[in-house]
Amino acid sequence: MRFARFIQQGRSSYAIAGDDTITPIDGTPFGTWQPSGSPIPLGQARLDVPVVPANFYAIGLNYAGHVQERARLGGAAAQLPTRPEPGYRSVNALVAHGQPIVLPADTTTVQYEGELVVVIGRRAKHVRESEALQCVLGYTIGNDISERNWQKIDRSFWRCKNSDTFKPMGPWIETEVDLDALRTSVRVNGRTQIEFATNDMIFGVARCIAAITEYITLHPGDVIWMGTEGASTDLHPGDVVEVEISSIGTLRNPVVAGTSQRGSSVADHATQ
Amino acid sequence: MRFARFIQQGRSSYAIAGDDTITPIDGTPFGTWQPSGSPIPLGQARLDVPVVPANFYAIGLNYAGHVQERARLGGAAAQLPTRPEPGYRSVNALVAHGQPIVLPADTTTVQYEGELVVVIGRRAKHVRESEALQCVLGYTIGNDISERNWQKIDRSFWRCKNSDTFKPMGPWIETEVDLDALRTSVRVNGRTQIEFATNDMIFGVARCIAAITEYITLHPGDVIWMGTEGASTDLHPGDVVEVEISSIGTLRNPVVAGTSQRGSSVADHATQ
Repeated sequence: MRFARFIQQGRSSYAIAGDDTITPIDGTPFGTWQPSGSPIPLGQARLDVPVVPANFYAIGLNYAGHVQERARLGGAAAQLPTRPEPGYRSVNALVAHGQPIVLPADTTTVQYEGELVVVIGRRAKHVRESEALQCVLGYTIGNDISERNWQKIDRSFWRCKNSDTFKPMGPWIETEVDLDALRTSVRVNGRTQIEFATNDMIFGVARCIAAITEYITLHPGDVIWMGTEGASTDLHPGDVVEVEISSIGTLRNPVVAGTSQRGSSVADHATQ
Repeated sequence: MRFARFIQQGRSSYAIAGDDTITPIDGTPFGTWQPSGSPIPLGQARLDVPVVPANFYAIGLNYAGHVQERARLGGAAAQLPTRPEPGYRSVNALVAHGQPIVLPADTTTVQYEGELVVVIGRRAKHVRESEALQCVLGYTIGNDISERNWQKIDRSFWRCKNSDTFKPMGPWIETEVDLDALRTSVRVNGRTQIEFATNDMIFGVARCIAAITEYITLHPGDVIWMGTEGASTDLHPGDVVEVEISSIGTLRNPVVAGTSQRGSSVADHATQ
């Protein structure tokens, strides 16, 4: 089943997504829900990010090819991590399927990273790896947009990973997934840049959940971005970048140029 | 004015805190609000964290004495940062004034860090330093509890800074603050451990807001923890740790021992 979130009259609410329509529901996939209202043609629905997480985790170095690539760019020997380590992303950067990725005016090295995203459905702490998938509601797709020069110097990855619009996520949450069967593809302007077996991770979903919950409670709606494979290329204004994960869907975002601005942008109370 | 958040019949809502009572309000300090209901004696009110931020920033190395102390412990020369760099904390770790800090069973080096916390009141992007304080609603107090051995090895500070209960915040948001007049004190079991001029930061509040908003939109309810000064000492079960910032208040939390647990803690749907 696919849970989408869509915007109607300025409010976001959930729906069940079918092939051509979405059917609104009352409630959320994290609690009780029931169908409500008539199906809406998918092409007319304005999708929102499928969830706004309270806690936003990302497993940084989780595919062997990507670890080697990052080491090569840093001029160091590749060293595979020996335990999963979640980093943090921040919801200021989220944009939905279809919304633009805005390139900051002062950089030209912004790149894609196609990732599987785990959406937590049930509160979990001290979970054994063998039981960890019980707390998963489903999976969506993330594009971990990264500015590569800032990534070398930002101590905490704040700009390079979390500038506004750098975290496209969607289009929906798929609850029926065979992890071993998934394949991730990233396309720019329709041309495939990279393709890999999604589950070829150094640390799989269950292992990461077990590791996190040794110290941290996972809550319904939390997300874990599972990392990407291989190398990336620079994005340019006018590009369209797609991340497809088989049986989940395709996350598509246009890339636009940002403008350099300064001053006068504290919202007045009316526009909060 | 002091905005507190308190729990009544399982729901959190806002109140105006006076010296001895809190008066419930309808609405939130981030929008419109009006008094509602009768004053409640402060001693009978169960305070919650004053806000659950969507984006949770922390300026890591922001006092000269603390930078020197961290360098000394790491065996390196102290190097003052040349620009403010926000890191991330996560709301799983928040606990309110009065709630226990739980020491994980597998460590003995958990320490306090008393910090000023900026609470954003208005959306802001591309803000000049001279206008940055316009987007601040007020200030509260944070205790950036840190496990020092994990801090040496956690690539992303996930356990050392974000284990459950490691982020006490409160007791309320004070909107009338003279930053230059503030003094921060940390006490353990009533004995002062450290005291410093709160505004002796390497990068002040306005500078940090201007830096963040060059790339990132700040939203109402976001918080920025401004860092701590000096060295800390280990906390032990039975301790009571207090962070006082003059004219804001005192954040007090007891310290308790955690238990080692594993397995069987995925919530069933009824207890989400």
